[in-house]
Amino acid sequence: PDMRAAEDAGARNAQLTKPPGALGRLEEVAIWYASWRGDPRPRIERPQVVVFAGNHGVTARGVSAFPAEVTAQMVGNFRAGGAAINQLAQAAGARMDVVALDLDRPTADFTEEPAMSEDEVVAALAAGWQAVDPEADLLVAGEMGIGNTTSAAALAAALFGGAGGDWVGRGTGVDDAGLARKAAVVDEGLALHPQAKDDPLEALRRLGGRELAAMAGALAAARAHRIPALLDGFICTAAAAVLEKASPGALDHCLAGHLSAEGAHGRLLQALGKAPLLDLGLRLGEGSGAALAMQVLKGALACHSGMSTFAEAGVSGG
Amino acid sequence: PDMRAAEDAGARNAQLTKPPGALGRLEEVAIWYASWRGDPRPRIERPQVVVFAGNHGVTARGVSAFPAEVTAQMVGNFRAGGAAINQLAQAAGARMDVVALDLDRPTADFTEEPAMSEDEVVAALAAGWQAVDPEADLLVAGEMGIGNTTSAAALAAALFGGAGGDWVGRGTGVDDAGLARKAAVVDEGLALHPQAKDDPLEALRRLGGRELAAMAGALAAARAHRIPALLDGFICTAAAAVLEKASPGALDHCLAGHLSAEGAHGRLLQALGKAPLLDLGLRLGEGSGAALAMQVLKGALACHSGMSTFAEAGVSGG
Repeated sequence: PDMRAAEDAGARNAQLTKPPGALGRLEEVAIWYASWRGDPRPRIERPQVVVFAGNHGVTARGVSAFPAEVTAQMVGNFRAGGAAINQLAQAAGARMDVVALDLDRPTADFTEEPAMSEDEVVAALAAGWQAVDPEADLLVAGEMGIGNTTSAAALAAALFGGAGGDWVGRGTGVDDAGLARKAAVVDEGLALHPQAKDDPLEALRRLGGRELAAMAGALAAARAHRIPALLDGFICTAAAAVLEKASPGALDHCLAGHLSAEGAHGRLLQALGKAPLLDLGLRLGEGSGAALAMQVLKGALACHSGMSTFAEAGVSGG
Repeated sequence: PDMRAAEDAGARNAQLTKPPGALGRLEEVAIWYASWRGDPRPRIERPQVVVFAGNHGVTARGVSAFPAEVTAQMVGNFRAGGAAINQLAQAAGARMDVVALDLDRPTADFTEEPAMSEDEVVAALAAGWQAVDPEADLLVAGEMGIGNTTSAAALAAALFGGAGGDWVGRGTGVDDAGLARKAAVVDEGLALHPQAKDDPLEALRRLGGRELAAMAGALAAARAHRIPALLDGFICTAAAAVLEKASPGALDHCLAGHLSAEGAHGRLLQALGKAPLLDLGLRLGEGSGAALAMQVLKGALACHSGMSTFAEAGVSGG
C-alpha cells in the first residue's frame, strides 16, 4: 500500500462535510482503498467479477446435495446470464468473466490421492492469474464446484488445525448424515496427507481444487496489479488463506465482503483477522456476497471522492 | 401487503437456480418487497430519497457539537450535490429531493414549551406526505437538523419509557459534558410534557421537530402508495416509531436499513422488532445508511426477478 496516498486520503476525509467519523467503516475502507490504488481520491469504475468453476473427485463420496453435473450446468447458466452472480455483478456495474477449469477432468478424490498433480495446480493458479484484468480497480473472485465446501473444509483444517467436524458445513444443503460424511471424508483426507499441514501450497494441491487454486492465483495477481479485492464466502476465503499462510500479509489488499452462513466461515475470517462488511446469511458462493459488498465499497469511495469539503461548501466546522 | 403476490414470489424463489435458502436474507426481503408491491416479480427502478431539514430551539441548551446555522448550510450542500447522501443516492440510482422546513423559524425549546403548535406539526406531517412521489418504488426518508438527536431521544423516551440517559448519544460528536447536558435536557422535557407518554402524536408535537414529523408523514404516505421504505438511523427510526405506537403494524412496509452507531438506535430497532440490513458504524443521518441499504434491496430484487429457474436454465434440482 501507498502510505502517502493513505495520509492524503485521511487528510481529505477529515475535511469532508460530515461530523468526524460519522461515516463509520465507509471512511476506513475508503482510505484503505486509496492506499492500495496509490491515489488519495480514487473512484471504483472498472470492477471485475471472475467466477471459476471446477469439478471434484471427492463428490464420489456423497458429500453434496447436488449431482456433479450441476457444475457444468451452472457454468452454462453463468454464460447465459441467469445466475445470482450475473444479477449482482450487473447491479454493481462489474464486468463478469467465467472460467471453467477442465470440468470434464475432475480432481482426484483426496481421500485416495492428491487432488491435483503439481502441473495441474500450477496450471490452475496461472489460469486464475491470467483471468484478472490488469485495468480492473476492484476484484471479486467467485467459484462454482459441486463438492467444493468439502475441499475448502479440508484445506482450512490443514491450514489452521482442527478436525473435519470443526470446518464442514451444509454446503448446498446436505442433511445430518451428509454432514457427518463430509466430516469423515475431511478427516480421511487429513490423515492421508500429513504433508499438507506444513506447506500451504501443498495443502492446496492435495486437498483443494482447480477453482480454489485459480481464486488464489487471481487474488495474488490482484495484489501485483494493486487491485483491491473483496473475499466472498467460505470457499473463496479458504483459497485466499493459502496465500496468507504462505506469506503473512499477502491478503492485506483484501477485505472480507461478507460473513457467509456456511459452517466455519466466521472462524476462518477470525483466523485471518478480517471483519466482514455484510452479514446477510448468504451461502451461495459464486462471488455473490462479495459482489453485494462491492456496492458498499463503491458507496464509500463515492462519498470519499465526491463529497465537498467544509470550505468548498461553506459549512461551519465542528 | 398482498399475500397472493407473496405466495407467488415464494413459489418463484423456490425455483431459482440456487440451493434453497442460499441467498439468505435477500430471499426474505425480496418476497416481502413483492408483497408490498403486489407483484410477484418486481424490480426497483424508481427509488426516492427525501431529506427533510428542520431547526430546533433546544440547541440553545448547548446540546450539539455544531452551531445551528449548519442546518441551512447543509441544505445548501445537499442542493449543490456535495453531501454524503448525494453520492449515495446517486450510486443507488435514486431521485433525491430536499425539503427545508421553515429553517428561519426553529421549533420552540421543548424544555420551555411544546416544540410545535398543532398547526405546525400538521403542516410538517403534510409536507412529508406531499414530498413522496406516488410513482416511487422505494423510499428513504432522511434528515438534517442540528440538535435533532436530542429531540429524537426525548421522543423515544416518551414512546418507550426510560430516562434521558437511556436514549441520548453523542450525535455529531458532543463530549462527556455535552452528553450529560443532553440527558438532563431530555429529562426536563419529559417532566414538562407528561402528556407525551400517552399519546404518540402529542409526543411528536411536544418533543419532536419539523423534520421528524415530516419523516413520519412521508413514511405514512409511502404506505398509502404501497411504496416499501427503508428506515435510516436513530432520528428517522424515532420519528417512524410514532406511527407504530399510534397504530401497531404501521411500519410493516418498512425495513431497518442499518444499525447506526448513535446511542440507542439498536434499542429502538429492538423495540420495533426490526433487524437491520447493514451494520457499518454510520451515524450521519441524511438517509445515508438507508441509501446504502437500497443497494442490498435492489440486489435482492435483481436476483429474485432476474435469475433463471432450474427449468429455464436446464440445471438439475437438488
